[in-house]
Amino acid sequence: MANFEEKTINTKSIYQGKIINVQVDEVSLPNGKTSKRELVKHPGAVAVIAITDENKIIFVEQFRKPLEKNLVEIPAGKLEPGEKPEVSAKRELEEETGYTTDKLELVTSFYTSPGFADELIYIYYTDKLIPLDTPKGLDEDEFVELVELSLQEAESYMEQQKIHDAKTAYAINYLKLKGMR
Amino acid sequence: MANFEEKTINTKSIYQGKIINVQVDEVSLPNGKTSKRELVKHPGAVAVIAITDENKIIFVEQFRKPLEKNLVEIPAGKLEPGEKPEVSAKRELEEETGYTTDKLELVTSFYTSPGFADELIYIYYTDKLIPLDTPKGLDEDEFVELVELSLQEAESYMEQQKIHDAKTAYAINYLKLKGMR
Repeated sequence: MANFEEKTINTKSIYQGKIINVQVDEVSLPNGKTSKRELVKHPGAVAVIAITDENKIIFVEQFRKPLEKNLVEIPAGKLEPGEKPEVSAKRELEEETGYTTDKLELVTSFYTSPGFADELIYIYYTDKLIPLDTPKGLDEDEFVELVELSLQEAESYMEQQKIHDAKTAYAINYLKLKGMR
Repeated sequence: MANFEEKTINTKSIYQGKIINVQVDEVSLPNGKTSKRELVKHPGAVAVIAITDENKIIFVEQFRKPLEKNLVEIPAGKLEPGEKPEVSAKRELEEETGYTTDKLELVTSFYTSPGFADELIYIYYTDKLIPLDTPKGLDEDEFVELVELSLQEAESYMEQQKIHDAKTAYAINYLKLKGMR
């Protein structure tokens, strides 16, 4: 691979928040000049492609403040410090959907926006869902509504941009390639 | 759709950068309580799935400071103020790859990380590439290397996590669904 490394000359912390930290790094470029890079540090995230016994995909609808509107997405959440992604995925599935599972397969992982953020999301798959007797609570500032859709309905939601985020767009193509109907 | 709207009580600007702005909004939740939302404002982005006459996919390799490593990605860049996404996509294709095109199809768009950022990326497709006689320059702090891969090679890069970002993961599945071999 080409060596385009940008060595850090100086790091300035801008903000340390509950979910993100923001910093500006002064870097030396491959041509010897210097530049600034604006960086968002994120703990990472997990998402679950979950299929019910009735061949429906499980989504959650929630208000997304950055967009000032609701989106319908596959269940997801951020990694807690020190938490293994698979443990996190099971926890988010339980908290957001009322289902649990004994079988999560890792589908893939990807950086959501590598130009400015280090968020890495792990995508899991399960079609072995077990309803929880006692639903687990959400975080106290989290409000979501469960939505179960066929693949065809999900594609229609995507055309209408009710579904409109990277991980869920990925999930729909993944299921199509897997032969779901 | 459920009404989970979070009304803004107060907005605090944290940082106004070259690419991102960061703000913290105090919001009233559906249950009447208040909470804080950390928001990254981004101008939006474009990416191009570009196929050569030799049936290769065009990628660019570059150093991604947030990850401290190189990634191989489909050509992409951020929207300039007031620029139409299609114009931006053609410009980024020309700057990063040395090709241009008269035919860009919009494949889809999605928010990359709706939990904390408003970045919306538009994905275009072209298999009508025209080599530029005079390559256009990159931004002065941008260093990329062109990589042309077959679909099979691209999948191998993804297994090795040389390809490891949302838009490129989406692009590979898109091409598989389109019947590329």
